[in-house]
Amino acid sequence: MRTAAVVGSGLIGTSVGLALSRRGVRVHVMDADESAARVAAARGAGVCGRPPEPVDLAVLAVPPARIAQVLAEQQHQKLARAYTDVASVKSATAQAVARSAPHRPSYVGGHPMAGSQCSGPLAAGADLFQGRAWVLTPGTETSRAALNRVLAAVALCGAVPVVMEPQAHDRAVALVSHAPHLVAVLMAARLTGAPRESLALAGQGLRDVIRIAGGDRALWSDIVTSNAPALAEVLGELAKDLEALTRALRELEVHGPGTDSAREAIAQLLFRGRTGWECVHEPEHTSGQVTLSIPLTDRLGEVDRLVSAARESGIGTDSIRLRWSQTSSRLSACLATAPLAAPDVRRRLTDNGWQVSVEPATPSL
Amino acid sequence: MRTAAVVGSGLIGTSVGLALSRRGVRVHVMDADESAARVAAARGAGVCGRPPEPVDLAVLAVPPARIAQVLAEQQHQKLARAYTDVASVKSATAQAVARSAPHRPSYVGGHPMAGSQCSGPLAAGADLFQGRAWVLTPGTETSRAALNRVLAAVALCGAVPVVMEPQAHDRAVALVSHAPHLVAVLMAARLTGAPRESLALAGQGLRDVIRIAGGDRALWSDIVTSNAPALAEVLGELAKDLEALTRALRELEVHGPGTDSAREAIAQLLFRGRTGWECVHEPEHTSGQVTLSIPLTDRLGEVDRLVSAARESGIGTDSIRLRWSQTSSRLSACLATAPLAAPDVRRRLTDNGWQVSVEPATPSL
Repeated sequence: MRTAAVVGSGLIGTSVGLALSRRGVRVHVMDADESAARVAAARGAGVCGRPPEPVDLAVLAVPPARIAQVLAEQQHQKLARAYTDVASVKSATAQAVARSAPHRPSYVGGHPMAGSQCSGPLAAGADLFQGRAWVLTPGTETSRAALNRVLAAVALCGAVPVVMEPQAHDRAVALVSHAPHLVAVLMAARLTGAPRESLALAGQGLRDVIRIAGGDRALWSDIVTSNAPALAEVLGELAKDLEALTRALRELEVHGPGTDSAREAIAQLLFRGRTGWECVHEPEHTSGQVTLSIPLTDRLGEVDRLVSAARESGIGTDSIRLRWSQTSSRLSACLATAPLAAPDVRRRLTDNGWQVSVEPATPSL
Repeated sequence: MRTAAVVGSGLIGTSVGLALSRRGVRVHVMDADESAARVAAARGAGVCGRPPEPVDLAVLAVPPARIAQVLAEQQHQKLARAYTDVASVKSATAQAVARSAPHRPSYVGGHPMAGSQCSGPLAAGADLFQGRAWVLTPGTETSRAALNRVLAAVALCGAVPVVMEPQAHDRAVALVSHAPHLVAVLMAARLTGAPRESLALAGQGLRDVIRIAGGDRALWSDIVTSNAPALAEVLGELAKDLEALTRALRELEVHGPGTDSAREAIAQLLFRGRTGWECVHEPEHTSGQVTLSIPLTDRLGEVDRLVSAARESGIGTDSIRLRWSQTSSRLSACLATAPLAAPDVRRRLTDNGWQVSVEPATPSL
């Protein structure tokens, strides 16, 4: 991979240019809006304008709905030996490409799982893809040469390639990206026209839930429209849960807090929500962990000092329990830690004057 | 305010104890679970156990459903001269208190708008309420003396008191706190049983949307149940939007991307979401702002240096536009800034070697 072209110098295109240029690839930045290409070039994403001869790889970072047309045009003009795109929806793109691309073996669908609330070349960064998944959706006609060029570019961007079927990709992003976006939008839409007095009570929770609702509307309209079937399925299931929830709430409204079935429905939903949350947030599993026990005196500030010391060893307050013993009238702290980390944590705490004993490991379930 | 009692030493109770103790109030920490009270005391929230004589104020930081009962018990035992609680739902509490409290003038309903994903005394902090709203819902029987004691405690905690009717409070928190929580839960619930391959594509957007779904389930079950009427209204409206959205998606699924009415429905929803997002995130208003214009050369890294310099003056990338002039073949940057800040920003940039000119102010709309 020595030369590349980036068509479209928005957030993603400019970031690809920055990442590849940093690794020594000669990148040509092209954009229908010359000003945008100039800005990307000024940031170091490459040189402005069409390359004099075909490059190794062209990355089409134009809006999803335009991919097939731009691919056809550039293949006709022999821009590159291989092509990929960065569209968030892959089945629709694959179908459009199948209808119009002059040369399908040189094209590999792609979707880097990275982004930002801000758009445009100024928000771009060479590190945008570092450690992130980058989905590739090669078809049966895709040549191995084209796939390898794209894999090389993904590696140069520091991303982790994940090969998937277009339909599986679309179902996955409907679930983990597009539905969350619309859920944020649905919640944010409730705030329009709310009394100022109510909005003044908003805290970080609401801000986090609706943060992504501030994103680029034209882009999202395009994404939502292109991924309609997969999205309709996820949101249809969500609507069923919502309907059951509002039914339970209305039941409580009419019959008061004594309605067991309504309470049970709400408890079940909260439980499933927590389970889903754990799928992504991966809380520390306490089974199989080692417990370090530390006796405490009643000295003020001692607990806070221990919490700080634990945090320095990577142990959060979630992994600390304090116990009061009725028999000895003493307080002690229990720190849960991974078996491999335990000796190091213990040594650090002992060095700082804490008296640490190791409790038997909880058996792994 | 010289003495106080905190009943219930969880996150909120311990934080109140820490905040009041820091300001010189003698705080007594009480909890049915002695271990929890000991931990709170060890952190500096006060002394453990019941005060020998009535204190100036008792803060009841027990679960919402237990407030009325605990208030009645403590008033019988003359724990304090005034009482408040910290429950997230106020109408139900007010009704329960009206039924059972021996002495209503000394009670003022309260709800500090602060919290944390973590619970318990270890997650508490004296600064938890700093600058946050603290709703008070005095009734017609509430004595001025009791209200003033609670106002003093709120001030000592660094919070901003907001007096509201219980029903208005409940509608407000249904919108800005409880509905967002359930929306996060509904989205998180969709993730249970999802293929690992799909979850691997999850990014920060999803994590933010569902972050609060990891919260204390027992507490939230209680909150949701107590605020059912107000919540049913907010979620009922949200369900209507969701229904229209899924209808539009299914229409696109059947008829393809050409369905204007479906596209329009989606665009409208995204627009309303953005408008709601602005209610809370308050983006900088560009009308009435001053534009600073800075010519750029083609030197690599120049744009990045300007962006850094602008950031140091509090100007984010959202407020920077780059323009390419076809006639002069030159790139220039436009920074939008508030009129009052403009001279200072200009001076700083000029001091750093940038050539800055001021463009005429955009008239306020």
